[in-house]
This record gives sequence, C-alpha cells and structure tokens, in this order.
Amino acid sequence: MTEAPAASYPIDDTNRVKRRHQRAHYDHATVHALLDSAALCHVSYVIEGQPYCTPTLYWREGTTLYWHGSSASRMLRNLSEGQPACLTVTHLDSLVLARSAFHHSADYRSVMAFGHARLIEDQTDKSRALTMMVDRLFPGRTATLRPTTEQELKATSVVTMDIEKASAKIRAAGVIDDEEDYLLPIYAERIPVRTVIEPPEPDGRLLPGVTRPATLSAFRTGRRLDEALTETYAMSYPAG
Amino acid sequence: MTEAPAASYPIDDTNRVKRRHQRAHYDHATVHALLDSAALCHVSYVIEGQPYCTPTLYWREGTTLYWHGSSASRMLRNLSEGQPACLTVTHLDSLVLARSAFHHSADYRSVMAFGHARLIEDQTDKSRALTMMVDRLFPGRTATLRPTTEQELKATSVVTMDIEKASAKIRAAGVIDDEEDYLLPIYAERIPVRTVIEPPEPDGRLLPGVTRPATLSAFRTGRRLDEALTETYAMSYPAG
Repeated sequence: MTEAPAASYPIDDTNRVKRRHQRAHYDHATVHALLDSAALCHVSYVIEGQPYCTPTLYWREGTTLYWHGSSASRMLRNLSEGQPACLTVTHLDSLVLARSAFHHSADYRSVMAFGHARLIEDQTDKSRALTMMVDRLFPGRTATLRPTTEQELKATSVVTMDIEKASAKIRAAGVIDDEEDYLLPIYAERIPVRTVIEPPEPDGRLLPGVTRPATLSAFRTGRRLDEALTETYAMSYPAG
Repeated sequence: MTEAPAASYPIDDTNRVKRRHQRAHYDHATVHALLDSAALCHVSYVIEGQPYCTPTLYWREGTTLYWHGSSASRMLRNLSEGQPACLTVTHLDSLVLARSAFHHSADYRSVMAFGHARLIEDQTDKSRALTMMVDRLFPGRTATLRPTTEQELKATSVVTMDIEKASAKIRAAGVIDDEEDYLLPIYAERIPVRTVIEPPEPDGRLLPGVTRPATLSAFRTGRRLDEALTETYAMSYPAG
C-alpha cells in the first residue's frame, strides 16, 4: 500500500522555478501554508501593456485567492473571463553576508500564484467575501461589528482568482561559501529579521467597559506576525 | 524669496493615486526615503502577456533602480530599449480593527516606481553594480571580500531601470470610524507590526581572530530593519 500522492499545482514554463530549482515546492501544503501566514501580498496585472505591482490585503479559500480590488477594479469590470494576474507573498527571513560578493544572499519564503483575476460583482458573494476578509484575520469578528451598509458594499471592490499554477521558493540556508573561501580571514554572518507584533493600541474612544475580545489573543506583543496569522487562519478555516 | 520647489516625479494616469489620493506623494524626498529603507522589493514584468510578480533585492542610485535579474533575464536579454516594469516596495506598519468591517484597514508605506527595465550587459557596469548591491547594504564590505571572479560576474544578472514615474502611498492613521459608530460598544484597536533585527549569527566556520567589523553596527539586535537600512544607505550614498 502506498499513500495517495500529495496534491500539487501543475508545473509549466510559467511557474517552474528555473534558478536554484532545489528551493522549489509545488505541493498544496507548502504553498498554502505560506499563503496563510501573511496578510499582505503584491499582485501584478497588465493595463494597456504596462505592468502594475500593487500591495494589498488578501486571503485564501481552498485553491482560490481573494484581495482588495483597488485601482485594478476599472480594468476588471465587465471582464467576466478574467485577466491574467500573479499574486506573490514573500517573507524576508535574513540577510546573508558571505565571504564573496557572489554568495551574498537572503533567506526568504515566497509564493507566486498565477491565474485569471476577476471582480466579484454579485452583492451576496461580495458580502461573504468582505466577511471573510475580516474574519480570516480576526476570527468571528464580523458578528461583533456594526453591519455593513448597502452603500459600503457597493464601494468595496473584491477580486478573486482561482490558482491555476503556483510555486513556492524557500531559502533557509544562511551562509554558504565556496569551500576554499572558508580558509580566508573574512567575517561572515547571517542577520535574521522577523516581523513581530508590537503592543496593541486600543482605540482612544472605546466606550467604558468595552474590552479586548479573547479572539484577538493570537495578536500579542512580541509574537511573530506569520505565526499569529497562521493561527487565526486555522481558527477561521479549520478544514485548511 | 521663495524656495525652489522640491523635485517630484511627473504624474500621469499610470502613477496617479486614484483611491485615497490624500495619501499620495510624488516628491523625490518621500519616494527615495522609502526606497532607501528596504532591501526587498517586488517587481512586475510581462512575458508573453503573463504578468510576473517577483521578489528580489534592489537598491537606488539617484533616480535609477537596480535589482537582481533572476528569471527575467531571458526576456530582457537583447532588449536594449527595455521592457515596461513596475518595482514596488511596501512596509506593513499595522493592522487596523475598526467598528465596522468597511473601515478595517492597515497602516503602510509603499512606493510604486515605473520605467523600462534592461539587463546590464557591460561587464564593467555589472561589476560596479555587484559592488553596490553589497555595499549599499553593508558599507565598504566589498573591499574586504574575496574578489569576484570572471565566471561569477558572467553568472550574475543585474537589471536597471530609470524611474520615469513613481508614487508613494502612506497610511499612518490607525482607527478611523464613522462618527456615529464611536457610540457603539465595539472594541477597536491598532495592532502595530515591525520588522526587526534578531541576534546576528556569526558563521560557524570563521577563522580565529576574525571579528564583526564596526561597519555592521547598524544591524544590531532589536533594531528596526528599515532604520538600519536607511542608515547604511546614507553611509554608502552620503549625497542621497
């Protein structure tokens, strides 16, 4: 008996990692875990031949991605078939100082996801998307909020994209020098960097008796943001 | 007597910030300061109609950007006139929890820079670029390293792009709710996040007596990465 092969994204010339292919991963587990550990992505579209690289908040549901529409909305409106897009998430984990310029590097974890982006036009679908945009970060929060108005819903642009292809690229190697260079009296080090949560700042106009809900406990001072986001994602999507 | 107007990037439909235009900045000082406070960017190209959003290390020299060529090299080779590209740098500064879903947001600082990317083919130019790729991060470091070989230089791809248009977008507002929503008993807060330096890790194979050079003092435990990078940039490019 053999286990069923793990689900993976198909590989072609678009998403195949050409340089340092030993750092590449195409399986759902690796790709999705990285996507679920961040809130900020960069998404690329083409408008009249000009590429745009736009930062925005996003989240994943199965093999589908969602993000704020922003300035891409005009282009996507009325394009039911979608426009090619690429959504990328990157964690910078370190700067690497080697004994030669050539081997200076960085440790990082990134995902590039490819597909066709389209605007969510249906109001019910958009309402559901807006709920998840909040609840993916802060589990159960939407139910505690002032309800969204029709006008707000109309003013919200949400884009969706089924992931057709994806690749993750991970470097977690620190200093790697040519063997003979280890004999040189040159300093080398890895400078780790982390994105962490600073002390949360309660709004200055909270009503008396309104306190921080326990559902926000994932966001505590000093914690890594990627760990907090992984935890809250699992609370909102327990099935993964 | 009036002061000369500050230098700014020209504004057109490509880089004009359409949503929340009060957050927009086009002046060199704001755009360049943001570019100089990061090491990682995302760059967008189009290859056969498909947009790519690639994370890479970059740096600025005047109004010119440089970055690692990576998988775009094939496309850029022999294209002396350049290909349209967009290089974006983003700092996520907080997650913002408002009293309505609609006003949930994030504080951030980002720059989008537009131009035409081309591969540096000339070996002397490439050698100089490789020097600055290291020295911009770690001032004076190249002079202390094992020299780059011809073969390494050939294996290095560096892309350059003159910034033709750019915009910075900054949100640093925390919670902003509709006035009437402040009367609701709903918890709201700002969750600040920072990318900080963890304890530097000297390589395990340093020769006896090889110690950390003083030029790396900007990278010290607990410091914000954007501040350290701003400091080292100013050391390498004192004229700005």
